[in-house]
Amino acid sequence: MLLKKLREEVLEANLELVRKGLVLYTFGNASGVDREQGLVVIKPSGVDYDVLKAEDMVVTDLDGKIVEGTLKPSSDLDTHTLLYREFTEIGAVVHTHSEFATSFAQAGLAIPAFGTTHADYFHGPVPVSLPLSDEAIQGKYVHETGLAIVARFKGIPAIDPMAVPACLVAGHAPFVWGKNAADAAHNAVVLEAVAKMAYRTLTLKASADEVSQALLDRHYLRKHGANATYGQG
Amino acid sequence: MLLKKLREEVLEANLELVRKGLVLYTFGNASGVDREQGLVVIKPSGVDYDVLKAEDMVVTDLDGKIVEGTLKPSSDLDTHTLLYREFTEIGAVVHTHSEFATSFAQAGLAIPAFGTTHADYFHGPVPVSLPLSDEAIQGKYVHETGLAIVARFKGIPAIDPMAVPACLVAGHAPFVWGKNAADAAHNAVVLEAVAKMAYRTLTLKASADEVSQALLDRHYLRKHGANATYGQG
Amino acid sequence: MLLKKLREEVLEANLELVRKGLVLYTFGNASGVDREQGLVVIKPSGVDYDVLKAEDMVVTDLDGKIVEGTLKPSSDLDTHTLLYREFTEIGAVVHTHSEFATSFAQAGLAIPAFGTTHADYFHGPVPVSLPLSDEAIQGKYVHETGLAIVARFKGIPAIDPMAVPACLVAGHAPFVWGKNAADAAHNAVVLEAVAKMAYRTLTLKASADEVSQALLDRHYLRKHGANATYGQG
Amino acid sequence: MLLKKLREEVLEANLELVRKGLVLYTFGNASGVDREQGLVVIKPSGVDYDVLKAEDMVVTDLDGKIVEGTLKPSSDLDTHTLLYREFTEIGAVVHTHSEFATSFAQAGLAIPAFGTTHADYFHGPVPVSLPLSDEAIQGKYVHETGLAIVARFKGIPAIDPMAVPACLVAGHAPFVWGKNAADAAHNAVVLEAVAKMAYRTLTLKASADEVSQALLDRHYLRKHGANATYGQG
Repeated sequence: MLLKKLREEVLEANLELVRKGLVLYTFGNASGVDREQGLVVIKPSGVDYDVLKAEDMVVTDLDGKIVEGTLKPSSDLDTHTLLYREFTEIGAVVHTHSEFATSFAQAGLAIPAFGTTHADYFHGPVPVSLPLSDEAIQGKYVHETGLAIVARFKGIPAIDPMAVPACLVAGHAPFVWGKNAADAAHNAVVLEAVAKMAYRTLTLKASADEVSQALLDRHYLRKHGANATYGQG
Repeated sequence: MLLKKLREEVLEANLELVRKGLVLYTFGNASGVDREQGLVVIKPSGVDYDVLKAEDMVVTDLDGKIVEGTLKPSSDLDTHTLLYREFTEIGAVVHTHSEFATSFAQAGLAIPAFGTTHADYFHGPVPVSLPLSDEAIQGKYVHETGLAIVARFKGIPAIDPMAVPACLVAGHAPFVWGKNAADAAHNAVVLEAVAKMAYRTLTLKASADEVSQALLDRHYLRKHGANATYGQG
Repeated sequence: MLLKKLREEVLEANLELVRKGLVLYTFGNASGVDREQGLVVIKPSGVDYDVLKAEDMVVTDLDGKIVEGTLKPSSDLDTHTLLYREFTEIGAVVHTHSEFATSFAQAGLAIPAFGTTHADYFHGPVPVSLPLSDEAIQGKYVHETGLAIVARFKGIPAIDPMAVPACLVAGHAPFVWGKNAADAAHNAVVLEAVAKMAYRTLTLKASADEVSQALLDRHYLRKHGANATYGQG
Repeated sequence: MLLKKLREEVLEANLELVRKGLVLYTFGNASGVDREQGLVVIKPSGVDYDVLKAEDMVVTDLDGKIVEGTLKPSSDLDTHTLLYREFTEIGAVVHTHSEFATSFAQAGLAIPAFGTTHADYFHGPVPVSLPLSDEAIQGKYVHETGLAIVARFKGIPAIDPMAVPACLVAGHAPFVWGKNAADAAHNAVVLEAVAKMAYRTLTLKASADEVSQALLDRHYLRKHGANATYGQG
């Protein structure tokens, strides 16, 4: 069986989403990539989390062609593989319909950087894609979803996907990524917490200000990059 | 004992509502129909869920006449049987006072189709009935509740009850249905999740747009109909 | 030991408030009355719920004079005893700072009868008292809290305390009552559920209408009075 | 090993924050001070709560110099030590990103004293600091965070930190303190409950009034000071 360790990591990331209350029934999926072999490990479509096993995972190449596995891969596979091809530093992708992040996606609103909890993980607002055109929806829809995300990051001004590891897809839900599967799941959990507090901030005070660039930098760099000071590392 | 399997399915649907936090105390009820025999299995009225057993279920005909059972059927029986007579393709009905769906019913507002979570299950907004007249309330109230639901689906434009398997009764709460008892309970759980996100979407942005017809079609048909692609089926 | 059965019932009511998430730490208290003996059983002040025992309960007369018990009674005792003297049909009183009911009390707003969940238990809006005057607060404050509740029910128009078994004290929290301790705790749990849905109804639509008198009557009388039809009774 | 008992108390306070749902992952920290020895015990940075042990705690002097411990102290250490130096009666400090208190901090709003739950613990609104300047953020940021809190309490009018044992840091989150570690954690839990109810009060009625000074005094003094009457003490 290919990629035993990555399968375990992807399984564990899927289960972390369940433990933290981010998924209902079989909604949501996680994948991971092995950059050396150019292979993706992804959750199968519509399988219950409580019976999900590492060997159920589906292995594909970076174009989504199945290499190993008898189950159908997640229906969002083409979004995952496109993100791996375009964002070449990421190691894992997570997709959920977590309640508060999805509510921002449904409202077509980015999540503003209102506080240090946000700044510790996202070096700026979490953007929202443009709505997909009817042509895109009726065409290669799942692939087009990935294109809408990438367009948002490669637009003007560009956003660094390693500094803001999440995007809301308008009218849909968040996609989140990270260095590896545990990191992507962790980012998805924090995104939901940050979205929840942003929701309450906005409903308390619609004109609330984002934090200053100085505070955004201070907190983001506290946890990321060569000069990170947080934790025991 | 009649309909042993259906009794088990209806019991299980009732318990799923409890597990997912949709019912408080004895609020809520589920039923299922055997179309060949023309018999309905329904939860008894006001019995605690933690002592509820398959043999406690009440069996009636499609007019609500008791065929088997010593307990009184759910006080909402006449709504269930009317729905079975009018919506001839449904196999089960669930009624809850789940928090967010009920809040929309109390506000007299339909649940707009704000996202793909909604579109995966409901092929359009979840409608709200008109308020019942005093005459209807003082007459055959439970039957009239069913009539208010049916009027909403057979109005102009008509709504297909298999494509939008739920209705909010104004000033009351949701009724939800499905192909079978498990499906109806599943739809009720998703309805509550969808209502929760619609609530937050609207309180974030009162003028939020519904998804396009193209997106509604894409997601609904992804999980339903001859060309469904989701899951392992 | 006096009133062994009533002590058990009052203990159980206190624990039901904890199980249903209505109390934080030692906030909240329940009491019951034995009308024949003219004795009240009440929770002691500030004792942790997880060590609370039936023998810890304090027994007082209807004026709050301690008859049995070594612990200090709940600091809200004088409100409880006043309610027993004034509302002569009630058998138990519960006080909590449950989140949503308290939020209405803090906003100085009654809980409107927006739906049938409300109407099943409360035959009209749940009223809110007037704020207490400085003199009342600086005088016999706990007694005055009871007077503010009673004034609200004996005002014009009068409210029947058996038909609307709860009152919000402005800037404070709800007091709830019932036929017996289990009934009062049950009413407190439903009050919180009803307050939660009323909050969401109002934030969805500030101009939402209350249900009609006909619907209020239909649902209230379905569960109460000589012609009640709900349950197996 | 120094300060065995204080280490246990600080550990327990950290765990209480987890039990009550105030922290996600490793967010949040608690410390305690031994005034006689001039030593502080604080949680290490970024260690998982479920493996945290009393011996992992870091001991520093009042200037934050490490006296015992091999792990790095919480990254918020300099805020804790400054509060101990400036607020000489406090025995412990707790910092969380609890959802509702943080939402007020993000909105730059104090938590008004809307009810008796608040008044039982906080003798006035819970203030919010001014935003930190870019210079402060780019300088000794953690120390400056403490200065912003102290400035808010020593401003005009001054606030007694023993009467209002919490401050929101604008764009960040709450810092809470108390006589000892258990008291500080307890205050943090109540602050979150109070923030939650204030949020709902304001979203129900933006113009809601705070309680009167008389009610604020009555409730605060009921639980604090020489004439406290609450509990069995």
